[in-house]
Amino acid sequence: MVKKVLKFGGTSVGSIERIHHVAQIIKKEHDEGNQIIAVVSAMAGKTNELIDLSKKIEENFDKRELDVLLSSGEQVTCALLAGALIKLNLNARSWLNWQIPILTEGDHSNARIINMSIDKINNFLQENGVVIIPGFQGISKDGLVTTIGRGGSDATAVAVAKIFDTDCCEIYTDVDGVYSTDPNKIPVAKKIDKISYDEMLELSSLGAKVMQSSAVQTAMMYNIPLEVKSTFTNREGTKIFERENIDYSKSVTGVAYSKDDAKITLVGVEDKPGVAANIFEPLSKAQINVDMVIQNISSDEKTTDITFTIKRDDLTKTKEILKQNKRIKYKNITYNNKVSKISIVGAGMVSTPGVTFRMFKGLAEKKINILAISTSEIKLSVIIDEKNTVEAIKQLHTIFDLD
Amino acid sequence: MVKKVLKFGGTSVGSIERIHHVAQIIKKEHDEGNQIIAVVSAMAGKTNELIDLSKKIEENFDKRELDVLLSSGEQVTCALLAGALIKLNLNARSWLNWQIPILTEGDHSNARIINMSIDKINNFLQENGVVIIPGFQGISKDGLVTTIGRGGSDATAVAVAKIFDTDCCEIYTDVDGVYSTDPNKIPVAKKIDKISYDEMLELSSLGAKVMQSSAVQTAMMYNIPLEVKSTFTNREGTKIFERENIDYSKSVTGVAYSKDDAKITLVGVEDKPGVAANIFEPLSKAQINVDMVIQNISSDEKTTDITFTIKRDDLTKTKEILKQNKRIKYKNITYNNKVSKISIVGAGMVSTPGVTFRMFKGLAEKKINILAISTSEIKLSVIIDEKNTVEAIKQLHTIFDLD
Repeated sequence: MVKKVLKFGGTSVGSIERIHHVAQIIKKEHDEGNQIIAVVSAMAGKTNELIDLSKKIEENFDKRELDVLLSSGEQVTCALLAGALIKLNLNARSWLNWQIPILTEGDHSNARIINMSIDKINNFLQENGVVIIPGFQGISKDGLVTTIGRGGSDATAVAVAKIFDTDCCEIYTDVDGVYSTDPNKIPVAKKIDKISYDEMLELSSLGAKVMQSSAVQTAMMYNIPLEVKSTFTNREGTKIFERENIDYSKSVTGVAYSKDDAKITLVGVEDKPGVAANIFEPLSKAQINVDMVIQNISSDEKTTDITFTIKRDDLTKTKEILKQNKRIKYKNITYNNKVSKISIVGAGMVSTPGVTFRMFKGLAEKKINILAISTSEIKLSVIIDEKNTVEAIKQLHTIFDLD
Repeated sequence: MVKKVLKFGGTSVGSIERIHHVAQIIKKEHDEGNQIIAVVSAMAGKTNELIDLSKKIEENFDKRELDVLLSSGEQVTCALLAGALIKLNLNARSWLNWQIPILTEGDHSNARIINMSIDKINNFLQENGVVIIPGFQGISKDGLVTTIGRGGSDATAVAVAKIFDTDCCEIYTDVDGVYSTDPNKIPVAKKIDKISYDEMLELSSLGAKVMQSSAVQTAMMYNIPLEVKSTFTNREGTKIFERENIDYSKSVTGVAYSKDDAKITLVGVEDKPGVAANIFEPLSKAQINVDMVIQNISSDEKTTDITFTIKRDDLTKTKEILKQNKRIKYKNITYNNKVSKISIVGAGMVSTPGVTFRMFKGLAEKKINILAISTSEIKLSVIIDEKNTVEAIKQLHTIFDLD
């Protein structure tokens, strides 16, 4: 007997028909002799609808009460799915955040799950029960409702898998797995059968929004096997494992991109210790997420040029902060708000020589200019002109045999 | 300082604008130095919307899960109202069924509130806090969500008033009080300033659906002063007290009517002990609510005729049960499914001679035939042809000086 977490996202439970369909998936798994804990999101659109209501009351709606408000969305899905399963003669029951309880710590709207009581639910599973748990929420030690951030149902699913020591955690969603690149942009994109946690993390942080990153991190930390698969087809999904479980025949697993970036260069910054901290501390305080940072010696050799990328939306705010901050001295500031970041990701890269060279050569062949470069163990990112995005992805996809 | 329960029904919190308006009412009460516990319903239409969803899953949706589903409606209102009050700089907080907890016993969808923990909430009130509580729901001793029946927010409000020993319980609704008869049908209907619990009970059980009857019963049992008033005007509402507190200048307080009745007569029933029980026991088991019962000696003097009224919807089922039940012997069965019940209600009736005569004479003047009569200490009901309903109400309203 296998104990499984099945997580169903908002689109998967987005209508009555789809909830019936999800009930069939669960019934099939249960009939095969598996113990099932289902984690569900709010029906598609519901959370946004509730947020809209709160904003109509008050733009800065109280975070404690917002958590009370939003948590009702998953509660509704839990009850409807339990009802649909009971209709199929299964002994299903919704277990609400306070009934389990799902204990969290941290701020409202940004809490972390730290524990759940397992005995009652394990007994229920022993009695052939099907457990339905609301994603995205919990309660604090003071007995207040908390939520764990947008997309938090993935985190709930992985936490349940860890705490209940399940054999696996299947993430049902509206795509049938993780792709070598965005299949909407590049039709030759291929579904990846197996991928390592760290590759998945690089891909999801780079815009392949199949799964919430922190959930993948938790799964990696506790070595919980994940599978991302479609609610709407019977096809195999993408299995996510430790790197050791994967036989790398290719150096590159996927090509990711992120749009809406902007590049800023501070020209002629005084080159002395602490200058970078002076630049980035106020940005961090203003919640501006700095992505790539590249530092070059400036032409006059006494100063340095610092280039970094941020989200395009933050550009105006960033320029203001840089201009107002008297601790930052520089000659000039330039920026480009029409850039995108293209990354090749692959755990096999580290053992394959020449990947960097092949990437640069491939882009040069297409006359695509590289504006900045950043590397990590399993990732190589370049900033290019936004207009070259699709051509660059296509070229890299072909060069690294992903077509 | 006065401790008050303010209950707001679904229409009163039916939109964002109305929730803001309710927040203003609460702020005004709080600014006057009162301790406020607000009990709220789901936003108008929300409960029906959730029921519709459940019926789309399964016509006989599991009652335990239905309670989980429906209770989300009041949770949403609680959070939104708390947010609106916090915007007004009040220290408001939603207290959910399990956070208080509101302990209930009895079946799902039909539970009764038996207790609440008061210390935490009393402390919060002492600290100038405004308490928001969801109506219509609680939890069982096993920690399951329960609901207490449609209109149950009134019952929650009265239970809160009793358990927290508040000075009064104000029921805010979309009408500005209790009327001498239905103001939609009879434009000269007058708002009643003061009414006793038992008159209110007769009026509400007879179709004046301003407040849920069982809530009025509880208020009567514990002598909790009620006031029914409009959320949308500043006018005084109707105060509901013990009879002693009211100075009766009129013998009749109001004229109630109930539509959708049907009258059944069993002709020639054997006249011996236990025959009535034989008739009504199977109806009771089938959840058919028998209202008035009248028994006459039949023309042949060895048998009797038994007439009773039921809801029109139950007519087919009732006839079937009567025909199938072999323990019931009678010569003939007649029925009239187009009748209505008109009642005059007044605690002053008992001390005023001639009320009965004046009623019958008034109806006779309008040539309205009386098909059955039933009396109680503070009520006198007649069954008449449905087509005479409005004329009968008008006539009685005039005769008893209610215009």
